Amino acid sequence: MINKKEILDAFQFRHACKTFDEQKIISNDDLTFILETARLSPSSFGFEPWHFVVVQNKELRKKLKNGAWGATAKLDTASHFVLGLTMKSFFTKYDSPYLQDFMKNIQQLPKEAIKGKSEFFKNFQKGDFDLNTNRTLFDWASKQSYIALGNMMTAAAMIGIDSCPIEGFNQEITEKILKEDLDIDTDKYGLSYMIAFGYRVSDPKPKTRRSLNDIVIWKE
Amino acid sequence: MINKKEILDAFQFRHACKTFDEQKIISNDDLTFILETARLSPSSFGFEPWHFVVVQNKELRKKLKNGAWGATAKLDTASHFVLGLTMKSFFTKYDSPYLQDFMKNIQQLPKEAIKGKSEFFKNFQKGDFDLNTNRTLFDWASKQSYIALGNMMTAAAMIGIDSCPIEGFNQEITEKILKEDLDIDTDKYGLSYMIAFGYRVSDPKPKTRRSLNDIVIWKE
Repeated sequence: MINKKEILDAFQFRHACKTFDEQKIISNDDLTFILETARLSPSSFGFEPWHFVVVQNKELRKKLKNGAWGATAKLDTASHFVLGLTMKSFFTKYDSPYLQDFMKNIQQLPKEAIKGKSEFFKNFQKGDFDLNTNRTLFDWASKQSYIALGNMMTAAAMIGIDSCPIEGFNQEITEKILKEDLDIDTDKYGLSYMIAFGYRVSDPKPKTRRSLNDIVIWKE
Repeated sequence: MINKKEILDAFQFRHACKTFDEQKIISNDDLTFILETARLSPSSFGFEPWHFVVVQNKELRKKLKNGAWGATAKLDTASHFVLGLTMKSFFTKYDSPYLQDFMKNIQQLPKEAIKGKSEFFKNFQKGDFDLNTNRTLFDWASKQSYIALGNMMTAAAMIGIDSCPIEGFNQEITEKILKEDLDIDTDKYGLSYMIAFGYRVSDPKPKTRRSLNDIVIWKE
């Protein structure tokens, strides 16, 4: 059990850090801890459709700037810079061999359970959520990756590490760089977000939010 | 600063809780705390495109079962049952009056900053992320709501509260119930997920995940 006030203090501490202290490097132990909270995150059907690329190479960071107008200062100064990839339909379509293997070897489900879950997942994709195009299927899988994103930022803040989530990139240009320079198979993985980690150089502006009354309705 | 082991223990504690102890009710203070972590969550451009409905009324919970095949046991037993709504294009399209008002009155940005940010957001929607349809725009906003979802589940686990995220509902049937029985304006809000909170009645299966080596690539 963790103290509520300490948890909320971490939520107040977290902000979208624009520039990081280049002299302060996150320890391997702390970065592993942050990635571990992504790894342990929940996802729809438990399919963990995420993958992370930690880009420390200076040349590659420089290249990434070409497509990522929202990431330039972070690519220059972040202690660690992570690309949040999400699986495309090659992996996530209901009939992919990958998912069959995943249910058997990772989720360790018995044969009958795999059969049932596969049928369920097929109906879910084709029906209720209408995940019939590559785009809608990728967006659905990305939502799961955003759970991991939220957890990484929260966990980092809880140990005093700053972060910045980034959507400010051109998908087409950036995926071309991912393919050509980072050897990522962009037919199979797409880029959902970037996230920079490090330590702030200056204090953020005060946090603004709507009040709880403005965002919650009770039906008693 | 919170101890890393304690944080990881909470990630291990969290699981998709199928059935809750009907006798154990979450205190108002704890539920407010959980919602507070959603409120303080980050979102793209800081636009907080989420809204939460806490459904405690037994009749309404019963009605919700009609569209939510994945939620029946949780609607019956959860201490608190929350609908995670996300704003539709009425609010989130780049030229919505709501966003202008939000930037002025919530984010408290000066006039010039609002002008710049609006232009930026317009280009982001029309260009880089291709958010030109109601569906792609809603999915993008939903991703932000999933950050709040992740944080709520993590925060709950940290204070010993169980949760279950639910995507198992038919969008069409459920939005009809939201409109007709819960007075939600479904032209303006869509349902991204449901989430149940309470206390477990039995221990979960051991958690399965790919290893960190399987999900992280380093580019040194």
